[in-house]
Amino acid sequence: MPPQNQARQRLLIKGGKVVNDDFSVVADVYVEDGVVQQVGPKLNPEPSTGLVVLDATDKLVIPGGIDTHTHMEFPFMGSRSKDDFYTGTKAAIAGGTTMIIDFAIPQKGCSLTEAFDRWKSWADPKVCCDYSLHVAVTWWSNKVKKEMESLVLNKGVNSFKMFMAYKDVYMVNDEELYEAFSCCKELGAVAQVHAENGELIAQGAKKMLAMGITGPEGHELCRPEAVEAEATQRAITIANAVNCPLYVVHVMSKSSAKVISNARREGKVVYGEPIAASLGTDGTNYWNKDWAHAAAYVMGPPLRPDPSTPGFLMDLLANGDLSVTGTDNCTFDICQKALGKDDFTKIPNGVNGVEDRMSVIWEKGVYSGKMDENRFVAVTSTNAAKIFNLYPKKGRIAVGSDADIVIWDPEATRTISAKTHHQANNFNIFEGMVCHGVPIATVSRGKVVYEGGVFNVTAGEGKYVSRPPFSPYVYKRVRQREQVCQPVPVKRAPYTGVVSGTSITKK
Amino acid sequence: MPPQNQARQRLLIKGGKVVNDDFSVVADVYVEDGVVQQVGPKLNPEPSTGLVVLDATDKLVIPGGIDTHTHMEFPFMGSRSKDDFYTGTKAAIAGGTTMIIDFAIPQKGCSLTEAFDRWKSWADPKVCCDYSLHVAVTWWSNKVKKEMESLVLNKGVNSFKMFMAYKDVYMVNDEELYEAFSCCKELGAVAQVHAENGELIAQGAKKMLAMGITGPEGHELCRPEAVEAEATQRAITIANAVNCPLYVVHVMSKSSAKVISNARREGKVVYGEPIAASLGTDGTNYWNKDWAHAAAYVMGPPLRPDPSTPGFLMDLLANGDLSVTGTDNCTFDICQKALGKDDFTKIPNGVNGVEDRMSVIWEKGVYSGKMDENRFVAVTSTNAAKIFNLYPKKGRIAVGSDADIVIWDPEATRTISAKTHHQANNFNIFEGMVCHGVPIATVSRGKVVYEGGVFNVTAGEGKYVSRPPFSPYVYKRVRQREQVCQPVPVKRAPYTGVVSGTSITKK
Amino acid sequence: MPPQNQARQRLLIKGGKVVNDDFSVVADVYVEDGVVQQVGPKLNPEPSTGLVVLDATDKLVIPGGIDTHTHMEFPFMGSRSKDDFYTGTKAAIAGGTTMIIDFAIPQKGCSLTEAFDRWKSWADPKVCCDYSLHVAVTWWSNKVKKEMESLVLNKGVNSFKMFMAYKDVYMVNDEELYEAFSCCKELGAVAQVHAENGELIAQGAKKMLAMGITGPEGHELCRPEAVEAEATQRAITIANAVNCPLYVVHVMSKSSAKVISNARREGKVVYGEPIAASLGTDGTNYWNKDWAHAAAYVMGPPLRPDPSTPGFLMDLLANGDLSVTGTDNCTFDICQKALGKDDFTKIPNGVNGVEDRMSVIWEKGVYSGKMDENRFVAVTSTNAAKIFNLYPKKGRIAVGSDADIVIWDPEATRTISAKTHHQANNFNIFEGMVCHGVPIATVSRGKVVYEGGVFNVTAGEGKYVSRPPFSPYVYKRVRQREQVCQPVPVKRAPYTGVVSGTSITKK
Amino acid sequence: MPPQNQARQRLLIKGGKVVNDDFSVVADVYVEDGVVQQVGPKLNPEPSTGLVVLDATDKLVIPGGIDTHTHMEFPFMGSRSKDDFYTGTKAAIAGGTTMIIDFAIPQKGCSLTEAFDRWKSWADPKVCCDYSLHVAVTWWSNKVKKEMESLVLNKGVNSFKMFMAYKDVYMVNDEELYEAFSCCKELGAVAQVHAENGELIAQGAKKMLAMGITGPEGHELCRPEAVEAEATQRAITIANAVNCPLYVVHVMSKSSAKVISNARREGKVVYGEPIAASLGTDGTNYWNKDWAHAAAYVMGPPLRPDPSTPGFLMDLLANGDLSVTGTDNCTFDICQKALGKDDFTKIPNGVNGVEDRMSVIWEKGVYSGKMDENRFVAVTSTNAAKIFNLYPKKGRIAVGSDADIVIWDPEATRTISAKTHHQANNFNIFEGMVCHGVPIATVSRGKVVYEGGVFNVTAGEGKYVSRPPFSPYVYKRVRQREQVCQPVPVKRAPYTGVVSGTSITKK
Repeated sequence: MPPQNQARQRLLIKGGKVVNDDFSVVADVYVEDGVVQQVGPKLNPEPSTGLVVLDATDKLVIPGGIDTHTHMEFPFMGSRSKDDFYTGTKAAIAGGTTMIIDFAIPQKGCSLTEAFDRWKSWADPKVCCDYSLHVAVTWWSNKVKKEMESLVLNKGVNSFKMFMAYKDVYMVNDEELYEAFSCCKELGAVAQVHAENGELIAQGAKKMLAMGITGPEGHELCRPEAVEAEATQRAITIANAVNCPLYVVHVMSKSSAKVISNARREGKVVYGEPIAASLGTDGTNYWNKDWAHAAAYVMGPPLRPDPSTPGFLMDLLANGDLSVTGTDNCTFDICQKALGKDDFTKIPNGVNGVEDRMSVIWEKGVYSGKMDENRFVAVTSTNAAKIFNLYPKKGRIAVGSDADIVIWDPEATRTISAKTHHQANNFNIFEGMVCHGVPIATVSRGKVVYEGGVFNVTAGEGKYVSRPPFSPYVYKRVRQREQVCQPVPVKRAPYTGVVSGTSITKK
Repeated sequence: MPPQNQARQRLLIKGGKVVNDDFSVVADVYVEDGVVQQVGPKLNPEPSTGLVVLDATDKLVIPGGIDTHTHMEFPFMGSRSKDDFYTGTKAAIAGGTTMIIDFAIPQKGCSLTEAFDRWKSWADPKVCCDYSLHVAVTWWSNKVKKEMESLVLNKGVNSFKMFMAYKDVYMVNDEELYEAFSCCKELGAVAQVHAENGELIAQGAKKMLAMGITGPEGHELCRPEAVEAEATQRAITIANAVNCPLYVVHVMSKSSAKVISNARREGKVVYGEPIAASLGTDGTNYWNKDWAHAAAYVMGPPLRPDPSTPGFLMDLLANGDLSVTGTDNCTFDICQKALGKDDFTKIPNGVNGVEDRMSVIWEKGVYSGKMDENRFVAVTSTNAAKIFNLYPKKGRIAVGSDADIVIWDPEATRTISAKTHHQANNFNIFEGMVCHGVPIATVSRGKVVYEGGVFNVTAGEGKYVSRPPFSPYVYKRVRQREQVCQPVPVKRAPYTGVVSGTSITKK
Repeated sequence: MPPQNQARQRLLIKGGKVVNDDFSVVADVYVEDGVVQQVGPKLNPEPSTGLVVLDATDKLVIPGGIDTHTHMEFPFMGSRSKDDFYTGTKAAIAGGTTMIIDFAIPQKGCSLTEAFDRWKSWADPKVCCDYSLHVAVTWWSNKVKKEMESLVLNKGVNSFKMFMAYKDVYMVNDEELYEAFSCCKELGAVAQVHAENGELIAQGAKKMLAMGITGPEGHELCRPEAVEAEATQRAITIANAVNCPLYVVHVMSKSSAKVISNARREGKVVYGEPIAASLGTDGTNYWNKDWAHAAAYVMGPPLRPDPSTPGFLMDLLANGDLSVTGTDNCTFDICQKALGKDDFTKIPNGVNGVEDRMSVIWEKGVYSGKMDENRFVAVTSTNAAKIFNLYPKKGRIAVGSDADIVIWDPEATRTISAKTHHQANNFNIFEGMVCHGVPIATVSRGKVVYEGGVFNVTAGEGKYVSRPPFSPYVYKRVRQREQVCQPVPVKRAPYTGVVSGTSITKK
Repeated sequence: MPPQNQARQRLLIKGGKVVNDDFSVVADVYVEDGVVQQVGPKLNPEPSTGLVVLDATDKLVIPGGIDTHTHMEFPFMGSRSKDDFYTGTKAAIAGGTTMIIDFAIPQKGCSLTEAFDRWKSWADPKVCCDYSLHVAVTWWSNKVKKEMESLVLNKGVNSFKMFMAYKDVYMVNDEELYEAFSCCKELGAVAQVHAENGELIAQGAKKMLAMGITGPEGHELCRPEAVEAEATQRAITIANAVNCPLYVVHVMSKSSAKVISNARREGKVVYGEPIAASLGTDGTNYWNKDWAHAAAYVMGPPLRPDPSTPGFLMDLLANGDLSVTGTDNCTFDICQKALGKDDFTKIPNGVNGVEDRMSVIWEKGVYSGKMDENRFVAVTSTNAAKIFNLYPKKGRIAVGSDADIVIWDPEATRTISAKTHHQANNFNIFEGMVCHGVPIATVSRGKVVYEGGVFNVTAGEGKYVSRPPFSPYVYKRVRQREQVCQPVPVKRAPYTGVVSGTSITKK
């Protein structure tokens, strides 16, 4: 397929406004071999033959989005999430996202490496854009520790997620958290947490069912904001005790976001990740009279019934209190959701987002005036790249960066709908949202994979991206503190008096 | 002993300013049979023979203090606290305190009732003033639940303490906390917590020792403020999940006090108890060059090195964010403390306070202008009486109240010193503090037990005070919420579509 | 009228639960000469002839409400408030309020004393219950200072209100505030503020009108929460600079309430007064499609569009962060409101409340489980009595207190409506609110003035109540701080070197 | 002077780690004509003759510092600040700062343009590095507005400072602030405020003097934190009312910093500028027994006696709650300070900082582990460049940027002292501070102006830098909000009923 190959080889994006997280400038972008070669006014790369040209006049040229949090084809709660690595990454591309980071999640007692390998074997033949894998630590032992080390050294993993919820399934206790965080710190990895108090959820769910509350509203009622905020506070406290950087996945509530923001003010190295769902919709949907509608929003932690939540989270994202955005994309169709039709605890948890994240954040963040286009780039790609040590290869349009690029039309409008989206699911939690700001072309490693609604992509074209440990963005401060902030013992004369029940000389 | 009996029978306190928590008024107080009979101007009870008269002109006449938190003769950490129920309550009386509430603490797996009986058997023959007993829940089973019920119904116990610290000794986990709180709520008892994350303490202690920090400063370094604040937040979250009133014993840090204050603003029924130590001194003492001095301040949670802590706690106590004051009086002499001379984790935890609490709070609270004399009464007796359902029998000078009364000279001055105090210990953590405000006479159930430095008291004169459950001050709101704030299920048509892996009709 | 006289003379309230702010007890209350003579079980006052008996079995017997903030027959904004001292106080009685405090407000440049006398001359012949008068300070001069002194010494005034809003009409600037606060502090009066930034309101109103926003929503849009919070913060800062107690009237927003709460945590002597309107309804009404409806809610500061405002304020009121409740009762009928039909700045500001305050607070506070019956008494009467130095004559049912008493049925229900209320206005901002908790009889100074919907009251029966300065509740701390918290100069050797532009010897 | 010219022309910085605010990379930097031409590994620019080479192996290569806040040769308080534009900018260069922004400050009633011209005429012949000028608005009139417009359009001014303090000298009131902010918003300028309540300072100073407190401690006592925080809150409120970006100069207190941080969380466009002094020392110095020492620290707003202030401000600066750093460099020697030897209000306000800022922030920020080297660059130059619309010409080392570059040795150490510093003053408020991190060479517009302690610079070599309005970093959000966040009137039928005192038809 020579034409396509060539398309991959040499690309000129002309006349757009190149938007990085620090500033914007009208410039052309020239790409060769999947890498940005030049950024500047009026480029004229020779030869002109074999040069693919994208006209970006009056458009923005932004780094492709990085979705920090997806679960493609995830075997979960007796089902498997609908979007696999093919449909999921294809939808991502259509929405302006050129990299996802999924999670390899072993069962308790099982090997982390095997989980990693299994997930990778699922992804490699299917992915349409670059991807990477976080790995979950769902139990603790010396073997787990060894595997973490090996994953970091040999597999390009620099982030591990611990669940504080899903009791008896994935949940780890405080002692295990402490060990896992300590290990992350030693290895230079980022510790991630699903922050909810699993004990309270388990008890709350029992209580709700006993009260006859079996519908989706029970899902939120048994795990209100405080359950999320408590766990967030606890995780931060434990992480800080071992000087380990912490990354809180899917920040869903004002309470939890405040906990994170306050910790950051105190200098703690902690990052909060709101997701498309928490930024774009809310938990009033659980009270929808239509069971199928209500069930479609079930995810953990739940969306919050306080309708000011999305705006609040967006304000903090704009301000820098929250850092990056993912989606927790984990789609189940109505037939899957219906496993819990008589008992909310059996509704598979998960919502869509991988396709719509960029548009939702643009609409609610940029169009609303809460953040500018540069901060948009920061929270959709740059910061993720920095935290997970991919910067400036990813998350920036600059000479030497991967040519993961999106042409964004800030004047165009589209309406989100399950009828038109590219995800495998038959429901969209953002149904009907009008978005000012539309991705009109997506470039992955220098190839135009999506343009004007048309895909030009093959399963498996994406690549697994290794992430080295000790991301400077995360770890520079941590290491310096190790060196200068350690307590020292007070110098004292030893106590030489009598000791209770003995004499000092005997001892 | 007829004269003494008569002394107990009829007493007139003349000319003082009677200070209750709501206002002050110059009035005489007439007492018979240990109970206040009249409060008013210029009382002239007949006959004048056999009438004991105390002149309180220019003095304050206040309800006797209630120390909500003591550990007399407590077997702990391989030793036993020095003050027993005799010396402890005698010292209390000298300081203007006429009731203490101690803790009966069973070992894990042991009977609560037996612990209660044992503690009562120690106290009854020795106490010089009234007392009561909280009971600790250090493990969980159906038997524990039954015993709690029995203690409430038959023994006058309306408060149970759970430890979140002392791993493997007293610590209970979140599930046990949930059960214990649920049980307290059903029984109408107040749930108390020692709020520190025991897991972090255990790990932190190991870490400090490994770093060569073996002195008393290690005690604070391994359990900094965040360890206390985290547990406080967690306890509040769990208690709130079951609508159980919560009482946080020994609030030692600004962080923890803020957590409590914020929860109260949100309407949660939670009470914070700072203690004489946290209001009157601070954790810089752990860095004292003299080991014996530093060790003397070791208690859990520790005093805080931030010297603005006592003033901050006093501000919140003055404002109503914190509610009552105890002491955690648990004295060990230097020979006992020396058990930990080479390892801070072995220093028996505990400090003095039962004698000095009233003076310390007066000095740092009233003399400093942070609170007035009425709030002083509220935080030293009235609020304790309300929370533990003793009001207005205790905590108020009014017709019908127990005649537990102190004559307080707000103009007199004394200097706290181990040389002059009445406690069994040879060290005083408030050594050298000049207090404006001195108890000059103490009346217990109508008998003048202390006056001008002279005791007139016999071991065993105090009485065990039963405390009925469902204190209105605590539980009125709780019960109302039970009735009006319960969630209800959304009314929906049942889902009738296909369910994944099955058809709906099959089911 | 002998029967009525006798009714005033001797009254027995039987079998009710007497509710004071500290606790509740089933007891009879015996009244003679307008004063409570006995409180106790099964009273049997002799002779039984001429004894009026009220059966309060299964009812609550509470201190009559004190409305701290009314404007009866107030000449304002080209109109005059509809309820005069007769209809206003009659409505008060029907609602369970037995004392109001109104405001005498001089024009700029005019005499405070004359304003006081004028208001008193309006009130005296009309009032149906006791009342008192705050006086406004709307400008500053030595004469004003003298008049304040005279009002305190000779007229029983112990509170002065300063407006930070109503530019060019009542507004005073920071310098004037400083002087007025200083004067209040010297005199032992409570400084009150209407806290809104008048400059911003003036500018905002111009801006809204220029944008074509002429309806009632413009009233809120030109003075959003921040305008109130800013002024509150400023007033607290200035008051604290002169150690003057501050009382913030009509707290309308979450922002402002937070400012007050935070100041109290820092030990500042500041009191916040939410009102029936801000506790019972919200500012979404300004966006009502019916102009007359929207206009009826116009008051300053405005109600807030955030619908969580009332619950938030009630939480703080329950917790002690806010102290007392008034109404700002200042009614205008629709024809009066219509003065601003084309320009919201001309809508006379004011709403009802004096009749419904007690029910609204019971419903939203007690029935909802946010506070108990004792706190209800505290915030509807006791705390007002304490702050304005009327306690325990007012605000408590105790021997020696004024017999201002309400029989409250916590089980009965009524629906608020303009059709049935007793106020002069034809609109009720609480229309349709179902209240669990109804005043069934009201006693003013020992006379049953309202019972079962029937009034037994004559215009002028109420009395003006003098309020002495230096309320102990407010000023004890203030005075102590004066004595112990003053800065002292550092002792230093004088500087003896060269001074720029001169030599030290020349000087 | 050809050699020097050539030095300016072509420069190669070899082997250093180039540190920008987003990441660091080992690279050479090649400069021609004062502009960066290449950044990359192993550059080999031809010809090698005439090429100045700086070896930066093992060193950091950072953008030259921008000091956002200086007052060189400022006529103030009856004196004139000691450092003029020559000594001041020379000291700046020695410290690693390559641009300052000073203030042109007209007297009340005087022309802004004339002030600008005067300051420029002082600076142009003397400056050793680039500079720009903020202009102060000290009064209001139509003429002022016109002049602001002209300064923006013709003089490259995009920032105006308003004083809320210095009553009767520079202070403007709320109405003037409103007008000035409105004007800034229209012109695309940044509004700056000196945030202190001038009225409270004036009153407080009188009070202190009356109490006999005449020494430097009186300076802080009469303007405590709350005075600064109040004004900060007020300025933010007013600025927000007109949607004007606000920049708070010299943030000196925790209180004020919190106000700013909280406003930012709510999405307000506000920037806080702590200074070297507030980050590096504290107000305990005012209580120093040596008058000359104490007086040397007098500046407004004052340094704070709370010793945790510098660390707190640094935490917020690290976290992004505070944005940039200046110095308020305004030096007076002891003879000048002595003008206030008997009255603190006459001590000329001002401290040093322009030379030491970079080192102080490195020491307290980077060496301490609070921020990394990239954030250091952000807060010392990049953010200033962005806010004042100089980016990426200034504040970044990238192709096309001005070659304002510093070679920084993170391993070297120096001790700050008045004996060795280059400022004109004979006192240094950071005396004795050991700084890890030393500027070893400074390049201004491509010329090595300072290296190894030796200057190579001529007065007047620096250039005035024009700053265009509507900085995208500041104004993109502001403009978007203008478009999408405006209120709209409610559509209603007009009110047609009777209007009070008239009939609707008449009207």
